[in-house]
Amino acid sequence: MQQEIKNNKLIIFDTTLRDGEQSPGASMTQEEKLRIARQLEKLGVDVIEAGFAAASPGDFNSISAVAKNIKESTVCSLARAVENDIRKAGEAIQHAKKGRIHTFIATSKIHMENKLRMSEDEVLDRAIQAVKWSLEYTDDVEFSAEDAVRSEMDFLVKVFNAVIKVGAKTINVPDTVGYSIPGVWGERMKALISQVENSSKVVWSTHCHNDLGMAVANSLAAVMNGARQVECTINGLGERAGNASLEEIVMAVKTRKDLFNLTTGIDTTQIVPTSKLVSTITGYPVQPNKAIVGANAFAHESGIHQDGVLKHRETYEIMRAQDVGWGANKISLGKLSGRNAFKTRLQELGIDIQSEDIINASFARFKDLADKKSEIFDEDIHALMSEEYTSEAIEHYKLIHLKAMSETGTTPHAVIKISENGKEVMAESSGGGPVDATFKAIEKIANSGAELQLYSVNNITSGTDAQGEVTVRLAKGGRIVNGQGADIDIVIASAKAYINGLNKLHSKLERAHPQV
Amino acid sequence: MQQEIKNNKLIIFDTTLRDGEQSPGASMTQEEKLRIARQLEKLGVDVIEAGFAAASPGDFNSISAVAKNIKESTVCSLARAVENDIRKAGEAIQHAKKGRIHTFIATSKIHMENKLRMSEDEVLDRAIQAVKWSLEYTDDVEFSAEDAVRSEMDFLVKVFNAVIKVGAKTINVPDTVGYSIPGVWGERMKALISQVENSSKVVWSTHCHNDLGMAVANSLAAVMNGARQVECTINGLGERAGNASLEEIVMAVKTRKDLFNLTTGIDTTQIVPTSKLVSTITGYPVQPNKAIVGANAFAHESGIHQDGVLKHRETYEIMRAQDVGWGANKISLGKLSGRNAFKTRLQELGIDIQSEDIINASFARFKDLADKKSEIFDEDIHALMSEEYTSEAIEHYKLIHLKAMSETGTTPHAVIKISENGKEVMAESSGGGPVDATFKAIEKIANSGAELQLYSVNNITSGTDAQGEVTVRLAKGGRIVNGQGADIDIVIASAKAYINGLNKLHSKLERAHPQV
Repeated sequence: MQQEIKNNKLIIFDTTLRDGEQSPGASMTQEEKLRIARQLEKLGVDVIEAGFAAASPGDFNSISAVAKNIKESTVCSLARAVENDIRKAGEAIQHAKKGRIHTFIATSKIHMENKLRMSEDEVLDRAIQAVKWSLEYTDDVEFSAEDAVRSEMDFLVKVFNAVIKVGAKTINVPDTVGYSIPGVWGERMKALISQVENSSKVVWSTHCHNDLGMAVANSLAAVMNGARQVECTINGLGERAGNASLEEIVMAVKTRKDLFNLTTGIDTTQIVPTSKLVSTITGYPVQPNKAIVGANAFAHESGIHQDGVLKHRETYEIMRAQDVGWGANKISLGKLSGRNAFKTRLQELGIDIQSEDIINASFARFKDLADKKSEIFDEDIHALMSEEYTSEAIEHYKLIHLKAMSETGTTPHAVIKISENGKEVMAESSGGGPVDATFKAIEKIANSGAELQLYSVNNITSGTDAQGEVTVRLAKGGRIVNGQGADIDIVIASAKAYINGLNKLHSKLERAHPQV
Repeated sequence: MQQEIKNNKLIIFDTTLRDGEQSPGASMTQEEKLRIARQLEKLGVDVIEAGFAAASPGDFNSISAVAKNIKESTVCSLARAVENDIRKAGEAIQHAKKGRIHTFIATSKIHMENKLRMSEDEVLDRAIQAVKWSLEYTDDVEFSAEDAVRSEMDFLVKVFNAVIKVGAKTINVPDTVGYSIPGVWGERMKALISQVENSSKVVWSTHCHNDLGMAVANSLAAVMNGARQVECTINGLGERAGNASLEEIVMAVKTRKDLFNLTTGIDTTQIVPTSKLVSTITGYPVQPNKAIVGANAFAHESGIHQDGVLKHRETYEIMRAQDVGWGANKISLGKLSGRNAFKTRLQELGIDIQSEDIINASFARFKDLADKKSEIFDEDIHALMSEEYTSEAIEHYKLIHLKAMSETGTTPHAVIKISENGKEVMAESSGGGPVDATFKAIEKIANSGAELQLYSVNNITSGTDAQGEVTVRLAKGGRIVNGQGADIDIVIASAKAYINGLNKLHSKLERAHPQV
């Protein structure tokens, strides 16, 4: 199952579904993970880290579903260096065409003393044992030394020597806290490769966090010094300031082939569609001035500059927008599209629906949307289906009816009808605006006591009749969820998002998330 | 006027008001530039590039106003290597306590041939002449070689030798197209410093764009190799994927003092307030997973990770949220605050109002807001004042009254009354949602034909009664503007934003923006 390594091939290991999912409120359902996994496969990533199997039965099932459905990419589960974690990971990937276990343990003094409370020898023994347990399930075993950035070199070398000896095939060196800078990080990779025995028999990997804004540059410095796998996420999603952005890594390697002389398996024209899908599903907007996938990345404002671009494209552009999939959003379906066309488009978008009931319900919602909006884009369908599935999954509260009024000089008022566990309840409230009034009316029913931390709306496509995608971040008792809703009417979208958030808080999903 | 250079001091040159303003739609009024400049001074930046004086009379006046009001930071104007540009820049900064002219010309073959249509000798002569013209106004002259990243080394050295000889004090090396990677960029800085004569007599500077996501890392690589000025922007604002982020540069240098051994003049606790102000004024939201200033930068989700943080803060945190100004937003004013308290707070926030009429109008709007919202934060006041000034500046259309209805299952409808050039006009329209209906009603009056490219709403503070800050990006005939509006009622905020955008499109402001 070990993938073929060519020395000029850079392996792209995507961890959007594992490390990306650790972003506050970005938890995904099994269907959402599957949809992203299918898009990652289309994008051409080599390895999909689908989750952390031991975290919860939900995580286990998601990984298992991804393993069964993905054929081109290797499917991986994370596991702490703990027997139960590894057995769970092994079982989750057992049906994968190509399956990997990624096991890790911390090797820095600060982590060993304060978190693990283990000695160096204990950590070393456990690392060896973890690889051995993993090998019972697959010969594609990856080992990570958590907090490698703050680990002592001699101990790191000792651990890596030992795990390679027992059979680890990929050695990952993480900057867990986003602490390094490229020169230093490149040197560390170089030193490890030169000091570790049999280092040429394994693939060296790097996993960088972005706390100081240098995840991409650090990753590439490691690549320059011999790493041949980069762990990254779509849109740089991930805890705190996130991980290295897949899109930036891939386009840097491609644009500067003169320096890297490496290839990846990525179909770059799938980058923007993948970015939009991940943003829709996780509720994490991408800022306009984000490299590659931000709305401005290929927009020009300056007069002189535009003149330069007109005179000679390369004066200011080093990449072409169409190479990364911009401008690819096309009218997908319209008012007259029938049930079959709708079903076919779902399949083309990687949305695999078994139940005829769900197809019928989705199609009804699609027709409803097409009545209000002349052009239906792929992005609209993704938003529609996200909602369809979310409500299927955890539907304690459901929006039935909403009426909200907004008028300058008067107090806004909202009347809402919600189904609570199948029973219809009504409430009304006034508020500062129609959204505030709506949220207050919902709270009269739910009485959740949740705190609204973030609220954002983004249009899914351009034009005044575009759907608005609303994300609300709710916090309660240490838990954080992102609720999402899409609708042409942003007040209704806001109500859907708030209710979605409450449903997520209501579901007692508790998971442990490990850190690399 | 030349500032004192210590070898372990890193000069922070902020170009939010010049290069940041070149982001599509981010044009600022004089009052907005002044407000940001005051905050940048409080933040402690060494140099504020306030604009490009020759671009338009508006730019000239803004630079001049900043020059008159800022005492601690050096105030700089950009100028092409053209006599008129430099004379305009010189006049704009003449009242500055410390004033700088930053002149530039392209030195790469591709730019010289395709844009400038000048020979190497012509470029060299012009560069020398540009510095000489600049010296008529100030002895603090900075010279940039545009597209240095793709320039031939020998020619670069020749140009730098020549401009230093005539008196340039700062030599800036830009990666205009965001093309480099840290190892290479660091080497280039090192090579330039070693090959240029008298290189120790000038300050070496770098200016990096973020097209491949490496602006910060490239800047720091230059610093590692001798650069002692970094050109950067708040939130990494700037054309395409933007410039190097000031906040990431500063926090990397501070957090890794062990590697850089440099100090800056920045008061890091002012970073988050500055970021929020720039975001409010430009309409550019910051994504949650942005390093340092994103909402998530210091939030933790993972269970294991939280456990680690609890056991020992440094297991996962390399910076403290309060060090960069998080959690500093405090209740600024309330319902009972009087006109004097309001006026005092405005002054403390750097909002300098001359006209009693504006103070009275703003205070009325403040009381109106305080009626709806119990706690008024600094962010609310900034949003309020942005609107007050914007409407003063360019007020062809003005919102008088709006009523919009939103109800599931019915077609939303909006009725709007607008003052057009002083004359009241009413219109109504149905639409997909209340915002769509409102925009369509406005268009029945304005008939602008503008295309709505982006629409976003973000809450200014947390809580359901927070104000929503709406940004609409309108495009028409090659021009792009961002319209903004804030209100507790997001439908009304949307109407304000759309009208603000139309007013900007209506003003015939045309400017040339140069590129570095």
